[in-house]
Amino acid sequence: MGVHENLSLGLVGFGAFGKLVARELGAHFDLVVSDPAYVGAVLEDGRAFATGELEEIAACDVVVLAVPVARMAHLCEKLGPMLRPGTLVLDVGSVKLGPMQVMEEHLPRDVDIVGTHPLFGPQSAQGGVAGRKIALCPLRGARWRVVAAFLRRLGLEVIVTTPEAHDREAATVQGLTHLIAKVLSDLGPLPERMTTASFDLLRDAIAMVKDDPPTVLHAIEAANPYAAGVRDAFFARAEKLRTQFEA
Amino acid sequence: MGVHENLSLGLVGFGAFGKLVARELGAHFDLVVSDPAYVGAVLEDGRAFATGELEEIAACDVVVLAVPVARMAHLCEKLGPMLRPGTLVLDVGSVKLGPMQVMEEHLPRDVDIVGTHPLFGPQSAQGGVAGRKIALCPLRGARWRVVAAFLRRLGLEVIVTTPEAHDREAATVQGLTHLIAKVLSDLGPLPERMTTASFDLLRDAIAMVKDDPPTVLHAIEAANPYAAGVRDAFFARAEKLRTQFEA
Repeated sequence: MGVHENLSLGLVGFGAFGKLVARELGAHFDLVVSDPAYVGAVLEDGRAFATGELEEIAACDVVVLAVPVARMAHLCEKLGPMLRPGTLVLDVGSVKLGPMQVMEEHLPRDVDIVGTHPLFGPQSAQGGVAGRKIALCPLRGARWRVVAAFLRRLGLEVIVTTPEAHDREAATVQGLTHLIAKVLSDLGPLPERMTTASFDLLRDAIAMVKDDPPTVLHAIEAANPYAAGVRDAFFARAEKLRTQFEA
Repeated sequence: MGVHENLSLGLVGFGAFGKLVARELGAHFDLVVSDPAYVGAVLEDGRAFATGELEEIAACDVVVLAVPVARMAHLCEKLGPMLRPGTLVLDVGSVKLGPMQVMEEHLPRDVDIVGTHPLFGPQSAQGGVAGRKIALCPLRGARWRVVAAFLRRLGLEVIVTTPEAHDREAATVQGLTHLIAKVLSDLGPLPERMTTASFDLLRDAIAMVKDDPPTVLHAIEAANPYAAGVRDAFFARAEKLRTQFEA
């Protein structure tokens, strides 16, 4: 048994983002994956990971919850009683207030909890995560510092923040991107030939988010308490602009 | 007098885009600049060009009109009678149907005319024009082929098209970029910290066009006959989306 023996990491959820977690962390931890929707846990590049039930996840040193925000409460209720003291639990949801309240409520007091929101996805991190950003919300325990240091070693820019500050800013960042993507994608195929540099950027931005799954849209548009305010402001401004053009 | 003696190029207009023309073409032609708003014609890098009245512009081998679209008719009426047979005249307006009709009407039949729309500006061509796009509409004479070949040697992607096809596509490309820039810029300063890659692209796109002068906005929003249709479609879709979110 060498001094560099890997910690075990239990990953719940092997959807688009769970796969990205496995791709990036598979070399650093002994991974165990749990997702009832998959028989095995195999990446596109052929790498296969051990799979297990929630009991085996709960026995890991680190547990990462990569499930839709709407499933967090159910998962934490089941998982909570199985966890051992000293386990470190992280989530990766696009919204932080709700999921972190759920973790605080349902996970035992003797586990450490860190909320994260990787500000990237399978599209934008296609070439790797170096240079991408991740929001980190410490909740319970001091090991968020170890997590932050580890993520920085992966090349990530770590933004330490609170759930409220996160949700407020993410509502603008992700809300506006998705609103604009929705408006434009419904206008039909966008021009590709006679384009300006600024339009090319706009089209690239939309291409990155237009295939986001409904679970991500739910987190951004419904689970974030500040999303409705951003939408209202956007639509009000559009309406004001329409009136100006008509005048 | 060597065989590589430069052609003379008369540049009317030394605004933001005229300066860009001078910056890119100053080494290839003997430039004469005419702009009543400037006493001299000096670039930020210190390069100075000869200046002259319209008569001196009209005596050049090539004439480039870099004035606001709304001033094209007045300029062509004055300049037309001064031009010599065989002169090559080009414009650089963001809309092509109107300005090219003006040139056809007011410039003598024995000068060649080529309409162009450089699909870039001082922002997007800050690092040079190589790799940028330019639309080119042949109108009179065969020398548009020489122009296209020259522009390609500068590294530009030349898109040969008609004024109508140009205006139709540009209405979408530039119209949407500017509409979105207007909606977002009025929402206050955009987040810069907790941003996704797609939002960064969106913000970069807006930064490129938000300082466009009113003359460019006029060309895009009023002089392009297809602009209103693009706006109507954008606002209709935004309204539909608002209703969906409220339901």
